[in-house]
Amino acid sequence: MVISRTHPQDLHHLSTETPDPDPLPQNLVQSRRVKLLATGKYLPKNQVTAEQLGQKLGIEAAWIQKKSGVMVRHFVEDETASQMGAIASKKALEAAGLSLSDIDCIVCTSSVPEQSIPCTAALVQKQLGGESSGIPSFDINSTCLSFVVGLDTLSYLVDAGRYSRVLLVASEITQGIDWKDQESSTLFGDGAAAAIIGKTDIQEGSKIICSRLETYSQGANLSQCLGAGNRYHPREYSDNIDRFLFKMQGRAIYRLAAKILPGFIERLLQPAGLTLADIDLVIPHQASLMAMGLIRKGLNIPEEKWMVIATNHGNTIAASIPMTLHEAIQQGKIHRGDRILLLGTSAGFSLGGMVLEY
Amino acid sequence: MVISRTHPQDLHHLSTETPDPDPLPQNLVQSRRVKLLATGKYLPKNQVTAEQLGQKLGIEAAWIQKKSGVMVRHFVEDETASQMGAIASKKALEAAGLSLSDIDCIVCTSSVPEQSIPCTAALVQKQLGGESSGIPSFDINSTCLSFVVGLDTLSYLVDAGRYSRVLLVASEITQGIDWKDQESSTLFGDGAAAAIIGKTDIQEGSKIICSRLETYSQGANLSQCLGAGNRYHPREYSDNIDRFLFKMQGRAIYRLAAKILPGFIERLLQPAGLTLADIDLVIPHQASLMAMGLIRKGLNIPEEKWMVIATNHGNTIAASIPMTLHEAIQQGKIHRGDRILLLGTSAGFSLGGMVLEY
Repeated sequence: MVISRTHPQDLHHLSTETPDPDPLPQNLVQSRRVKLLATGKYLPKNQVTAEQLGQKLGIEAAWIQKKSGVMVRHFVEDETASQMGAIASKKALEAAGLSLSDIDCIVCTSSVPEQSIPCTAALVQKQLGGESSGIPSFDINSTCLSFVVGLDTLSYLVDAGRYSRVLLVASEITQGIDWKDQESSTLFGDGAAAAIIGKTDIQEGSKIICSRLETYSQGANLSQCLGAGNRYHPREYSDNIDRFLFKMQGRAIYRLAAKILPGFIERLLQPAGLTLADIDLVIPHQASLMAMGLIRKGLNIPEEKWMVIATNHGNTIAASIPMTLHEAIQQGKIHRGDRILLLGTSAGFSLGGMVLEY
Repeated sequence: MVISRTHPQDLHHLSTETPDPDPLPQNLVQSRRVKLLATGKYLPKNQVTAEQLGQKLGIEAAWIQKKSGVMVRHFVEDETASQMGAIASKKALEAAGLSLSDIDCIVCTSSVPEQSIPCTAALVQKQLGGESSGIPSFDINSTCLSFVVGLDTLSYLVDAGRYSRVLLVASEITQGIDWKDQESSTLFGDGAAAAIIGKTDIQEGSKIICSRLETYSQGANLSQCLGAGNRYHPREYSDNIDRFLFKMQGRAIYRLAAKILPGFIERLLQPAGLTLADIDLVIPHQASLMAMGLIRKGLNIPEEKWMVIATNHGNTIAASIPMTLHEAIQQGKIHRGDRILLLGTSAGFSLGGMVLEY
């Protein structure tokens, strides 16, 4: 309980049931002179339409369209996560006019690793041909928010000059789908996205303006996969298959998110002197189209400022936000100087946000 | 290949077979005014001697003593990783005279998570009673070096003022031991360690002087567990049990470490104007006693400057370095103002090091 440290202005947005927000001045130190140099994306070969998936699962395509909104997603055939991550990374390197030797840190920001040991970043380094490069490689995990947390965290090391250029890569394969669960099984897709960040040149304005993460573990069981870590080893698989599948309570997550989000947004933006009206484009985590629409309306954000790619990508977990960012750049919806809000929720339960001047 | 960027002074330590070292100036930005406020440790209830383990595995206790050197290790009975992590964290909070509401970020630095979703830091937050605290919680993974990488990375956020006090916690349960493999099965132990860092007060000298991480994925397969990530889902367990067990090639890892380590130490220390003679105590990752002894002699570090706890703890994976640090503090082997070197290797293959003024 941290009631004594709660700022009064945080409270009027929140109902009496609201968890006590963390009012610590995370945002007092704001701006980092860090620039998004380039992004890349990879979608696996196997494209699956709502019709095809519906046929497999015995669900009407119209129900899928209404609920998840995902009309096309991609699933891996023989690709591994590190292979997909390396392809997305190579595209980002090409777009930036850089080669691997220009990168001095690789951070993998997927929700689930490729192997339990070692970290996926090392496997991506290998796929990129960097076996002997010595480039430091490690993983950061906050489930669906891993990329935002990785970008946020590493931006301090780039700003301080520890690393010149960091490759962030999120690559996801939805191995643990519970096909009996209509809600989650029609939502997800596989794929990878990468981004390269570097220090902003002296004459440029690109920066991270503010960022914030809040974790409320009261919601830790609302989206979870109990198994495959050190609690339930795979040898226990046949004893309880459900433990090794991803389980989510979509409605409860939405309720928790809707309750905390308005205050979260204020705690994110207010110390930087911003409001949602100052944002040119929101890059939300691509949850279900229905939940995204409700959140957008609840925050009173116009549709044209809210980037959606779930329709033909699905929810690609931690790759979802960087993939949406990549698409926004590719489609010309973001220009240098624009103020972009990355915003999402993740298992944990966490909320994360970042405003950057592109 | 980054040959063109290799500094000549890096080369004389390294044989012609040596991987090209990463010569990027990671260390140009050095010191961070970050202080280790307190540490904590938890060992699970079930204490297992070399005799007991030898009896179970059909190995002479004398062989275990000679090879791994671990005479006592602890294995969990009913503890979970987040429970152990929370107990170690509470001890660190008590030692620091702080409560959870003084912590504004929780980073879990274990090699393997408790569940595949969500991140273990959220589960530790829950075990600490912080369900409604909003304290940002996420994981950092570099296998055995996770704690060092977490401390290194978060120190930039503390130094910049983003977070005032960060709780780092590593909690390990060796679920994937291959009991057929004498070398690895006699090496590991379970347990947890925690550390709290904060900004150094103006009148104090505590700081992180320098730190470095290098990853050579040419060694990614030398210690690995292929399964339980998104490459081999637990449903494939019965098809190939070995994929879900930890496999290590101890001799090959030792050879790779011995080859890269001298140059690594120079790249770590030299930009800070230090040599090994300036270090008061080395806190090495607690690999096998045999390998640690060879490395220590190879680096010409006297025994009294080399902290060993493997004998009665085993190798507790990512908890090994913070647990050794905790023991060094508890046993009065470290005093404020001392220069401490944290040093280890991890699956990946990575080498990591940090010099801090305690």
